[in-house]
Amino acid sequence: MSAGKLYVVGLGPGEARFLTPEASAALGEAEALYGYAPYLDRVPARDGQARHASDNREELARAGAALAHAAGGATVAMVSGGDPGVFAMAAAVIEAIETGPAEWRALELAVVPGITAMLAVAAKCGAPLGHDFCAISLSDNLKPWDVIEKRLRLAAQAGFAMAFYNPVSKARPHQLDTAFDILREELAGSVPVIFGRAVGRPDERMRVVPLTHARGHMADMATCILVGSAETRIVERPGRPSLVYTPRRSGDA
Amino acid sequence: MSAGKLYVVGLGPGEARFLTPEASAALGEAEALYGYAPYLDRVPARDGQARHASDNREELARAGAALAHAAGGATVAMVSGGDPGVFAMAAAVIEAIETGPAEWRALELAVVPGITAMLAVAAKCGAPLGHDFCAISLSDNLKPWDVIEKRLRLAAQAGFAMAFYNPVSKARPHQLDTAFDILREELAGSVPVIFGRAVGRPDERMRVVPLTHARGHMADMATCILVGSAETRIVERPGRPSLVYTPRRSGDA
Repeated sequence: MSAGKLYVVGLGPGEARFLTPEASAALGEAEALYGYAPYLDRVPARDGQARHASDNREELARAGAALAHAAGGATVAMVSGGDPGVFAMAAAVIEAIETGPAEWRALELAVVPGITAMLAVAAKCGAPLGHDFCAISLSDNLKPWDVIEKRLRLAAQAGFAMAFYNPVSKARPHQLDTAFDILREELAGSVPVIFGRAVGRPDERMRVVPLTHARGHMADMATCILVGSAETRIVERPGRPSLVYTPRRSGDA
Repeated sequence: MSAGKLYVVGLGPGEARFLTPEASAALGEAEALYGYAPYLDRVPARDGQARHASDNREELARAGAALAHAAGGATVAMVSGGDPGVFAMAAAVIEAIETGPAEWRALELAVVPGITAMLAVAAKCGAPLGHDFCAISLSDNLKPWDVIEKRLRLAAQAGFAMAFYNPVSKARPHQLDTAFDILREELAGSVPVIFGRAVGRPDERMRVVPLTHARGHMADMATCILVGSAETRIVERPGRPSLVYTPRRSGDA
């Protein structure tokens, strides 16, 4: 059996204050790092540790390169923003293992969890995900748009609060407006929508608007969007930002 | 305006390796800690830092006590397992602010995110939440059981992977079996169900069974359950635990 090991490490949403000790230890142990360049840039350089940066769209190729490197006997870390298991690199690595050479199945694989964007955005504005919720990628690169529309409707009918990842891209500038239009058919216009941009980074920006006023141009690729349920509430505070929360109690209970 | 401050701090799922630097700093700054006793026990004692342990069912009273303490001008931390915004203390604290004396709205409130249980369980077995997913509390203490049944059906119809928090308690030993029965009406019997017990703690135990064989007695109060979608796959590995993952690609894309 190969002595190689691959860590898939969640860096959290930005600054080092989110990086768990387990993630730090894995990054310290690795002989080589792989990842999307802006994520690699967050990891302090270390003598003797190789870095292999790649483009954001090359997930499977990047996973294969890291696995091939580890299969040679090295300890390798794939870095991922947020949590690697939430719309990030863990699924791509395992897909590469499933479809790659048999020796990749012999490797030790350790996924190291991280703070995913929706948790950081939620914490920043209160507790909008304080009750049942769902997380949906709005990208139709990897699934048909009609699946996304169906999920939005069912999630609204279920009473879930929602988190949207990958809300917009240059190739699909109008889909987020379509998503809000769908939600306006299912939910009251007063439901709070939170745009959390670059949360956990110096250029962080938060904005809360009622669903009636939510528009696609309010988000960019660095934005995670949260949508409340019918039960989500806003608590005004004199001289402080309002708090948004979804109560633990729901329905008639 | 009061100089008091309340942190609501996520400890992550167990061991200190999950505790972020931001959470450590907040715990270090606090003059007093509040929380459910087993969570407080995870925080190393520090001279001069008071500790107020409470029972798990007293969330609102605990939140009020911490807020009243902070309103006196102190820096106080409420500790929470996992992430405080996911079926934990942040929503209870904000509910207490909404319904409490006006001076509580003047306090500085900072929610410090943590690794929530579903992310740790997912990381341990691969990437079962690698595509769209939802998180549902199965407790009917705070919502009617028929709301839970409706959400289970709609989540299955939407094609979400699922995470279940609070899957069982002594007061409701049979509801988890009812939940699995509902899912068996909506999903193929081969869909993987993951029981992650005490993940991140020394007595951690993982078990993966097909939905056909999932039973309520496989979970206890310390278990977080993940249910795959129709697209979730299992990758067998000779001499190593199988990996469970939900591909990034979905439907016909």
